[in-house]
Amino acid sequence: MQTTNEELVTALRKVLPVRQVTINQIILEQHSRDESYHSASLPDIVVFPTTTDEVSQVMKIASQYQVPIVPFGRGTSLEGHVIPYDHGMTIDFSLMDKIIEIKEQDFLVKVQPGVTRTQLNRELKKYGLFFSVDPGADATLGGMAATNASGTTSVKYGVMRDQVRDLEVVLADGTVIHTGNLAAKSSSGLHLNGLFVGSEGTLGCFTELTLKVYGIPEFVLAAKASFPTVHDAVEAVVSILQAGVPIARVELIDEHSMKQVNLHSETAYKEQPTLFLEFHGNEAGLNQDVEFMKEIVNDHNCESIDFETDNAARNQLWEARHNLAYAYVHGYPGKKLMVTDVCLPISELAGAIEHAREALDSLALPGGIVGHVGDGNFHVLLMIDMNNSDAIKKADKFNELIVMYALERGGTCTGEHGVGVGKQKYQEKEHGKALLVMEKIKHALDPNSLLNPNKILRINK
Amino acid sequence: MQTTNEELVTALRKVLPVRQVTINQIILEQHSRDESYHSASLPDIVVFPTTTDEVSQVMKIASQYQVPIVPFGRGTSLEGHVIPYDHGMTIDFSLMDKIIEIKEQDFLVKVQPGVTRTQLNRELKKYGLFFSVDPGADATLGGMAATNASGTTSVKYGVMRDQVRDLEVVLADGTVIHTGNLAAKSSSGLHLNGLFVGSEGTLGCFTELTLKVYGIPEFVLAAKASFPTVHDAVEAVVSILQAGVPIARVELIDEHSMKQVNLHSETAYKEQPTLFLEFHGNEAGLNQDVEFMKEIVNDHNCESIDFETDNAARNQLWEARHNLAYAYVHGYPGKKLMVTDVCLPISELAGAIEHAREALDSLALPGGIVGHVGDGNFHVLLMIDMNNSDAIKKADKFNELIVMYALERGGTCTGEHGVGVGKQKYQEKEHGKALLVMEKIKHALDPNSLLNPNKILRINK
Repeated sequence: MQTTNEELVTALRKVLPVRQVTINQIILEQHSRDESYHSASLPDIVVFPTTTDEVSQVMKIASQYQVPIVPFGRGTSLEGHVIPYDHGMTIDFSLMDKIIEIKEQDFLVKVQPGVTRTQLNRELKKYGLFFSVDPGADATLGGMAATNASGTTSVKYGVMRDQVRDLEVVLADGTVIHTGNLAAKSSSGLHLNGLFVGSEGTLGCFTELTLKVYGIPEFVLAAKASFPTVHDAVEAVVSILQAGVPIARVELIDEHSMKQVNLHSETAYKEQPTLFLEFHGNEAGLNQDVEFMKEIVNDHNCESIDFETDNAARNQLWEARHNLAYAYVHGYPGKKLMVTDVCLPISELAGAIEHAREALDSLALPGGIVGHVGDGNFHVLLMIDMNNSDAIKKADKFNELIVMYALERGGTCTGEHGVGVGKQKYQEKEHGKALLVMEKIKHALDPNSLLNPNKILRINK
Repeated sequence: MQTTNEELVTALRKVLPVRQVTINQIILEQHSRDESYHSASLPDIVVFPTTTDEVSQVMKIASQYQVPIVPFGRGTSLEGHVIPYDHGMTIDFSLMDKIIEIKEQDFLVKVQPGVTRTQLNRELKKYGLFFSVDPGADATLGGMAATNASGTTSVKYGVMRDQVRDLEVVLADGTVIHTGNLAAKSSSGLHLNGLFVGSEGTLGCFTELTLKVYGIPEFVLAAKASFPTVHDAVEAVVSILQAGVPIARVELIDEHSMKQVNLHSETAYKEQPTLFLEFHGNEAGLNQDVEFMKEIVNDHNCESIDFETDNAARNQLWEARHNLAYAYVHGYPGKKLMVTDVCLPISELAGAIEHAREALDSLALPGGIVGHVGDGNFHVLLMIDMNNSDAIKKADKFNELIVMYALERGGTCTGEHGVGVGKQKYQEKEHGKALLVMEKIKHALDPNSLLNPNKILRINK
């Protein structure tokens, strides 16, 4: 069915208030890009639903008129997930930003998809609770579930998928389902929670999330440890993990990135390969752990280690870490950010980071390495001049080298950012014949390929 | 296509050595039942593959001749999962029992599906490692992944699904895929690990598993705490969890079950509602935790608490707990075991257990309550005289009451045993329209319904 935009707007305005359906050029442009180097593309229409029922109505219209849809949170994705290359309708969830219920006895919260992680943590603090997943950006929880986000704390608390107890999902035909329940575990039915988390809007739109939260730990200790080489720092982390010392966070920042941190955050940290560490627990236990940890880092040539127990210093440390991507963006005006995101078995991590550094140097690319090294996940941040096709080609080549190195060693092309369009070309190499299974599932649930089409999987239409 | 058994045997013996294909009556009978009250049904043929390639060949033949298949581990399932009600071929994985690789640096093991958990732990001990999931029975790891098993330690370490990094799966048409990789986290592709774990053989047969393992904790402390009522014991657990004391195991055994424990294990434990607890960590941390925990249990009328630090006493404690189901079976000769398995949000647990006790008493059924109470999961063990249709009806009624109570409070009909045939009638009530999504996935991957047909989902053929 060929539809004009006008017909579609008219149909949508029958089910949504007029102001929630827009073709305003500025709004369309805001929904044409994410935070990455991927090129922009305009949606035809943006809708702002406020309830599950409105989302269901919108999906029914999309299905009736065969219009592609893209769910949109805060646009912080890094692989083009929310860019509507097939045009059609973007569903912006920013008006669905209610924290519906905090079940403190059960360590659960129920939220709408547009709630951001800092908004949630602000509220949870009143109950002595916190939400653990911390990807840096102040993303929406719906978006974080859609990409299976993680970040600095996943070494202890797990990734987004580990926190999801239940999703309310609107399917391609407008049907509303729940993928789970409120119990801590279940062996009932096929496990839809796991499948829908990380599906990047290709199987349905999330309209409500029930998430696991944690008690704020009794005692928190942060540390900053400098090493002569990245290799020493990574090997120290491997030894700490193998010794069974429970780390809550462990981030590697290489010397180039430490320089950006200092420039951007006005800190005066040593510009050397550095680990930012954090431990959560009780005081007696942590003191014993930390003594052990000190011995281990010394065995790996640690040059200095500073502990921060007070909140302000700790916050400064983590804010500096979180602002690193923005530090690069501000440090290279006019350029765009490309971030690699491989994750490998921990035994392969030191080699992978060395390989990345050598490849950076041999391609003469300016870039810094940071990593959630406790998980075997690291990023290389590259700033690219998008008007220089040679630079783009070199950056693409670099990304491919990094990915191939990881895939050949049992790793993955994306530890936490997701596939979007940027990692599509590696899906067959990574998943082999399993890709056919993914395609069958996609086709079974979205036979007309209207749900965020051509993300994760390339669908021939 | 109508096929005689003879034709099928001939076809199978072209791809498997003769002795690996059997129609021996005793072997067929061994594969006609599990450890539950569900009625037996004979397979037509049993095959014993030794390699992934043999499994693939067998699946191709099953597909060619349109013969249903049932994967079989040790037959310890409790809801009829491995009983071939549609007859056809049972694939017994007991010859695929190799521990392929222990990657100690990465805390990973690669095993064949027929390896049992005690076999794996015996080997891991040499490396200072252990596999955490502990369902009681010495099940195979393939079977445990198929049902998403859990058990006493999941409150700290998670369930089977949390341990699976990668599965090698043979699909209905014989295709071999991998569902994951060796990295600690991944946001690549649709998450097939989560979907295949718990699929009970309805989507494919597992031929290799890569699983997460843990370092044996530095310090382990076990305790046995007696309470005047089950309610007090459960409320104590809720308070311990809310206080953030990290428990590795917490099992509730009611007074009826304590009696069975003493009878079977020749122990002299108090026959009162009792918690068996275990804590893993470092010595200083545990000592601080335990002091706090003692205060909490005292607030909940704890009458006595005994600690066990030496290995022998700890092992006796957990062996007694693990043998409880067998204690009931041996205590009621000639009767069959029916076990309920609901899991609820922890805030609903005390009410659910009280409701179960009242229902037991009002139906005049003899039974004991045990539970992985840290997860909100509990079992009622009933011994049923299968020749007494009235007793069977009453037990079914009881199971239904327990399940409905849980479902109405956000719980699940099965916390860890799985659906099989026993929990099928509750699937629609629990999953609503999500059941249609599960059916679409099943149909997409197994269009002829040959893979463990009519388990989890009722397929109209």
